This record gives sequence, structure tokens and C-alpha cells, in this order.
Amino acid sequence: MRNRLLAEALGTFWLVFGGCGSALLAAAFPQTGIGFTGVSLAFGLSVLTMAYAVGGVSGGHFNPAVSVGLAVAGRFSPGHLLPYVLAQLAGAILAAAALYVIVTSKAGAEIGGFAANGYGDHSPGGYSLAACLVIEAVLTGFFLLIILGSTHGRVPAGFAPVAIGLALTLIHLVSIPVTNTSVNPARSTSQALFAGGWALQQLWLFWVAPIAGAVTGALVWKTVGESD
Amino acid sequence: MRNRLLAEALGTFWLVFGGCGSALLAAAFPQTGIGFTGVSLAFGLSVLTMAYAVGGVSGGHFNPAVSVGLAVAGRFSPGHLLPYVLAQLAGAILAAAALYVIVTSKAGAEIGGFAANGYGDHSPGGYSLAACLVIEAVLTGFFLLIILGSTHGRVPAGFAPVAIGLALTLIHLVSIPVTNTSVNPARSTSQALFAGGWALQQLWLFWVAPIAGAVTGALVWKTVGESD
Amino acid sequence: MRNRLLAEALGTFWLVFGGCGSALLAAAFPQTGIGFTGVSLAFGLSVLTMAYAVGGVSGGHFNPAVSVGLAVAGRFSPGHLLPYVLAQLAGAILAAAALYVIVTSKAGAEIGGFAANGYGDHSPGGYSLAACLVIEAVLTGFFLLIILGSTHGRVPAGFAPVAIGLALTLIHLVSIPVTNTSVNPARSTSQALFAGGWALQQLWLFWVAPIAGAVTGALVWKTVGESD
Amino acid sequence: MRNRLLAEALGTFWLVFGGCGSALLAAAFPQTGIGFTGVSLAFGLSVLTMAYAVGGVSGGHFNPAVSVGLAVAGRFSPGHLLPYVLAQLAGAILAAAALYVIVTSKAGAEIGGFAANGYGDHSPGGYSLAACLVIEAVLTGFFLLIILGSTHGRVPAGFAPVAIGLALTLIHLVSIPVTNTSVNPARSTSQALFAGGWALQQLWLFWVAPIAGAVTGALVWKTVGESD
Repeated sequence: MRNRLLAEALGTFWLVFGGCGSALLAAAFPQTGIGFTGVSLAFGLSVLTMAYAVGGVSGGHFNPAVSVGLAVAGRFSPGHLLPYVLAQLAGAILAAAALYVIVTSKAGAEIGGFAANGYGDHSPGGYSLAACLVIEAVLTGFFLLIILGSTHGRVPAGFAPVAIGLALTLIHLVSIPVTNTSVNPARSTSQALFAGGWALQQLWLFWVAPIAGAVTGALVWKTVGESD
Repeated sequence: MRNRLLAEALGTFWLVFGGCGSALLAAAFPQTGIGFTGVSLAFGLSVLTMAYAVGGVSGGHFNPAVSVGLAVAGRFSPGHLLPYVLAQLAGAILAAAALYVIVTSKAGAEIGGFAANGYGDHSPGGYSLAACLVIEAVLTGFFLLIILGSTHGRVPAGFAPVAIGLALTLIHLVSIPVTNTSVNPARSTSQALFAGGWALQQLWLFWVAPIAGAVTGALVWKTVGESD
Repeated sequence: MRNRLLAEALGTFWLVFGGCGSALLAAAFPQTGIGFTGVSLAFGLSVLTMAYAVGGVSGGHFNPAVSVGLAVAGRFSPGHLLPYVLAQLAGAILAAAALYVIVTSKAGAEIGGFAANGYGDHSPGGYSLAACLVIEAVLTGFFLLIILGSTHGRVPAGFAPVAIGLALTLIHLVSIPVTNTSVNPARSTSQALFAGGWALQQLWLFWVAPIAGAVTGALVWKTVGESD
Repeated sequence: MRNRLLAEALGTFWLVFGGCGSALLAAAFPQTGIGFTGVSLAFGLSVLTMAYAVGGVSGGHFNPAVSVGLAVAGRFSPGHLLPYVLAQLAGAILAAAALYVIVTSKAGAEIGGFAANGYGDHSPGGYSLAACLVIEAVLTGFFLLIILGSTHGRVPAGFAPVAIGLALTLIHLVSIPVTNTSVNPARSTSQALFAGGWALQQLWLFWVAPIAGAVTGALVWKTVGESD
């Protein structure tokens, strides 16, 4: 179990360091910055790469909503849920701290909203609370469907990390302008702790919506993918 | 059969929500928007991901032109064509409705042409009806060729979703400026219903050209790939 | 043999229609255009997708320099070289004709240099003849090395189209500013025929350099990859 | 052994020619340049492609820090370390020389800092020495974790080059603004030799940080991935 928790912590560290890091450091670099396309790639590749690296150790969740969804689908022991989520939070927060050190090493740098998620006035494109809740739930639901489907015995072994990682890329391509894209409460918590203020006040949505979506996605999968 | 139709509806929902969603929400975001490259990736990854997730359930068509082409090639029972197309339309329209809710949640937002397909005056780059018809037919023809070829027994199992999804990315990289890229009548219909007006009047082309192309592609495959 | 030649013609059609098409139609679209990154992806994905689709029929060369290199490496019968190259040229020229029809369907459109390759004054970034010759030869040499290595028995079946297609993407990421990237005499010929003038006068380099590079790459492979 | 060293030299040549070449030639091309996203793709694809091509010959390190990390993890004979590193340096420097010839073939061109790595005043975004040291060590550490994990017997054969190549893409998406991204002392040395001055003075960091990170990553892997 120690190795499994270490693997989850490392994987979630990489997701936040790679994904949020690319957003904070490279997205808006003048002229040659990577934009939302680069950030979307970075989030997806963080999961793709660590799923190959340590997926065989821990299952490669790196996300509390994914752990909950897998438990609902009967693929993950509910008794391991709490330690997994704590390990994910620890990895995510450590990564946020490392990014904080790097970002603030520039003279006069401020972190602003860090890479926190938000709705309404704090949605990058100004989308309403309801819209943000809907999109986070829908995207996390499909994320679970893809995770459960691509790791099913029907699919040849080895392709799941490609499907799952690139699903996260697609999710970001759609929704960065809406919520700055969470679908992962550990990622959201790690950024809100450093951003403070509104980011902490709005954090509840990025636990509620992804987990509600993940549970729904898991139930839909049990109907579509595993019944006759 | 229920599960197969659900799988087609879910896959086509994801194609429209991910592909058209990225176009509506993120393509033209100031400075860091994803542009046509990001939209092209989004469409391709929507098919890649759901083909891994539910391809084993329904075959993963997510597109009436693909279903027709597979029927012509003898890979899909013509008797299932109508229910498949209806399920695809249902999924696509539901996704368009969800996008409508999200897009209009911004104060003062208008949907304009939504992500509808068009020709002539409504081609993004101003291309003629004839050019639009040719490009949609050619691209859908090659799409079918790639689908039929990559799912043939000659190719090792598991790679087809990569080939097919990235073919859709390539198709969009070429043709968004021409027709806003259809190659999929369900995708076009879902957007035209909300855009109304010219989009409905021009919708016929995005049934005729993709289906004509798909039939031709299927016949070419039967010559090149399966004869001696 | 008829099917093999058809497969080569179709594959080279797709390479030119997809790759040069994306450059002509989408690269410089205002604000949301795909730029050189999108064009690089398009060329690579054209080969990746058709290598899965018809690679099992013809070997999936789609490029006279590749056919020559494979013959030098002992992987392709020299007696088939001429018909393969003719089929590749036919496919490439047909694709250029189709693009010509589409591009000129806009009122007042001119094709300018089409997507022709050039050096010196006609290098996009103004690079000298010598630099253009060196880069085309080096890039085609490594392209052959990657083709021969990734299709060798040491590599698990099915991955070669990914390696080869993405090698072509990388090649374009480096060299579009230098020569507009050829590494493929059929692609260059198809564009020069429509662009005329300087493009025809400079066409010799895009036969000489890729073929010289391909022969060298094949000989290097025989040393590094197949000797003891 | 001769073939293994040739393979390492060729692979490291390709990494520098493709990765640094895309940065020097295409990143800042007006309007349609590939930006940091394109450069990140180029570095990743250089490793992905040559790992398929010659990974079976030499193991496909192409990087002194990787060779050191693999030796620490017990996957590579320490006695081969010196010849491997020398072959990598030779390949990298030859590629830098080829790029020098091409870049300076333009009338009035200057190479400026070439694609050298730097910290403090020579960090592209102005990050401090400490921040640069931390990020290079962290990124190289995870790079080793991904290399060791994805080549472990748990992962189906053939996927490692995808995971490793795309890890390098992710690493660049995050850190080009910080250090211009090294994680590879051979790549850094090849550029510093041509850039001279500050690049040579700062070169020590791009040996120390990547190797320290690689050793740490290898030790972490031995705990997480191979112990019980």
C-alpha cells in the first residue's frame, strides 16, 4: 500500500506541476506562448506519461473524482478511497508549493489567481455558476466513461493511457475558458490554497461537480458497457 | 441493441460537445485561444477517446455517413442503419442543446451561426458551393478508406482509434476555412437546428456530400483493399 | 500489382491534399489559422493515417525518395521502382489539381507560389541553396533511418505508422521556413506544375537532395541496424 | 558496441537538429511560427521517432543524464557510461554545427544565444538561478521515473517511446520560459559551444541539475516501482 500511495502522490504532483505549471509559466509568454492548446496538451500528457510509469503500481487515478467513480463502478475498493484521496492531495499541494517558489522567483512577480478554477466573475470567459457546474459534471462524466471503457478487457492492453490522457487534453480544449478546467478536486484545491480569497470560496463547486459527474459516468458505464 | 444505440448516442454527443464546444468556447478566446489547430485536435480526440471507450459495444460510428459507408462495404447490417442514425442524431442534438445553455449563460451572448457548416457566403473563407461539395465528398471518402483499412485484419488490433481519430483531426486542419468542416451529417444537423435560417437552408449539402463521399470511399476500398 | 499502385496513388493524393491543402487553405487564416504547427501535423497525419489504411497493401511509401531508399536497403524490389514512382506522381498531381479547383473557387483568388518548395530567393525565410540542399538531404536521411528502424522485426508490430508519420511532422516543424519542406519529390513536382516559373526551375533540388539523403540514410541503417 | 555508439550519436544528433533546429528556424517565424508548442512537440518527437528506430540497438538514451540514471537504477552497465556520453556529445555537437551552417547562410544572420540554456539574466522569462536549478532537477527526475516505469515489464511492449517522447514534450511545454529547457547536458553543451560567453559560463548548471534529478528519479523508482 505504501508504494500505491507514493505512486498516486507522484502522479498527482506531475499533473499539477506539468499542467498548472505550463499554464502559469508558458501559456501567455509574449508572442511564442503555448496558449490554451499547449496547456491542454500538458495536462493530457501528464496523465498519459505517469499512467504508463506507475499505472501498474496504483492504477493511476491521480484524481479524487476518478477514485470515487472507479469505486462506484466496482473497480476500486471503497476502503482505499480515503488514503488515495489524501495521497493525491499531498502530491498536488506539494506541486503547487514548488510552482509557487518558481513563479515568485522573478523580481516583482505576483501569483494573482494562480491557476485556480472559478465560476461567474472568476470564470475566464465570464460563464455563470450553472454553466460551470454543468460543464464540469458532463466532462468528468465522460472522463470516467472513457477510463472505464478503455481499461475494459475488450480493448487490447496498453492503449488506455493514450485514450485517458488525450481525453483530458480534449476536456481542457473545451473548457479552459469556462472554469479554467478542473474535473479534478485535488488539482483545484492545490491552487486555491495558494490563491486564497475567492478561489477558496468557490472551491466547493470543484469538488461537487466533478464527483457528481464521475458517479453518473460510472453508472452510465455499468449500463452501456457491462450489461446485456 | 439498446446498449449499441446508447453507445452511438453517447459517442456522437461527445463528438459535438467536444468538437463544436471547443470551436464555440475556446477557438477565438483573445490571445491564448486554441484556433483551428485546437479545434481540429478536439474533433479528432473526441472520436479517438470514445472509440476506445465504446467502440467494442457499437462499432463506434458516431456519424451517419460512416454508418452508410460501412453498410456499403458489407461491414454493417443495413437493417440497423435507421436506428443508428436516429441515435446519432439524438446524441448530437442533445449536445448542441447543452452547448446552447452554456454559451448563452454569458450576459449579452448571442450564438450567431453557432458552429454550423456553410458554403458560398457562409463558408468561413468564402469558398463556392462546388468547392465545398468537392472537399466534403473527398474528405469523407478518405475518412471511410482509413476506417475500413485500419480496422481490417491486416492491421494489429488496437490501433484503429488512433488512425481514425487523427484522420478526423487532419480533415479539420484542411477544411475548417472551407465549410467549417462537416463530414458528419449529425454534427451539421445539430448545429443548424439552433442556428436556424441559412444554416438550415444549406444543411442538405452536409448530408449529400458526406454520404456520397462515404459510399465512394467504401467502393474504392472494396477494390483496393479486398480484391486480388 | 494494380492494387499496390492504386494504394500508392491514393496515399500520395492524401499526403498532398492533406498536407499542401492545409498550408494553402488554413495556415494563414486570420487570427485562428493553423500556422506551421498545424501544417506539420497535417503532413504527418496524412502518412500516419494512410499507412494504417493501405500500408498492408503497398508498403505505404507515398514518396519516390522513400521507394528508392527502401530499394537500396533491400526492402523493396528495384523492378517495381518505376511503376511506384509513376503512381505516386499521378496521385500527387491529381491532388494538386483538386486543390487548384478549390483554391481558385474564391472570387479574385490567385495561387501565387501554391505550396511549392524553393531555395534562395524562394526559400520562405531566405536560406541559401547550399543550406536548403543540406537540410533536405539530412532530413530525408533520418526519415529513411526511422522508416527502416521502426519497421524492423525488433519493434512490436503496429507502431511504425506512428513513428513514421510523426517523423514527418517533426521534419516539417524544423524546415518549413527553409525550403517549405519537401523530402518528397512527388509532393514538390505536383505543386511546381501548377506554380510554374521559378518553382519548375528549382524543382531539380527537390529530386536530388531527398533522393541523395534517402540513399545515405539507407546505407547508414544497413551499418547501424543490421550489421553486428 | 560500435553500432550502439553510432546509434546514440545519431539519436542525439536528431534530438538537437530537430529540437534546437525547430527553435532556431521556426519558433519565431512571423505570424505562422510554431512557438513554444511546436518546439515542445519537436523535441518530444525527436526522441519518440529515434527510440523506435534505434532503441533496439543502443537502448535509446540520447542524453547523458538518462544514461547516468539508468546506471543508478541498474538498467545500464556503468562501464559503458563514458563511451555513451562521448557518443552523445559527438552527435549533439555535429548537429549544432550543421544548424550553425544553415542559420548563418542567411545574409546578415547572427546566431545570438543560439538555442543555449540559461538562468537569471539569461532565463527567457527572467527566473532566478535557484528556480532554474529546481525545475531542471524536478523535470529530469520525473523524466527518469517515466523512462524506468514505461520500460518495465508491467507495461505492454512498444508503448515506451510514446510515453518517453511525449514526456519530453510536456517538459518543454512547462519550462522553455524558465531555462529554455535542458534536462539534457549534451543538448546544452552543443549549443553553448557555439553561443560562447555566458552560455559557457552557465553550462555547469545544465550538467549538475539534470544529473542530480536523474539520480534522484532513479532512486525514487527503485522504491516505488520495484520494491514490495
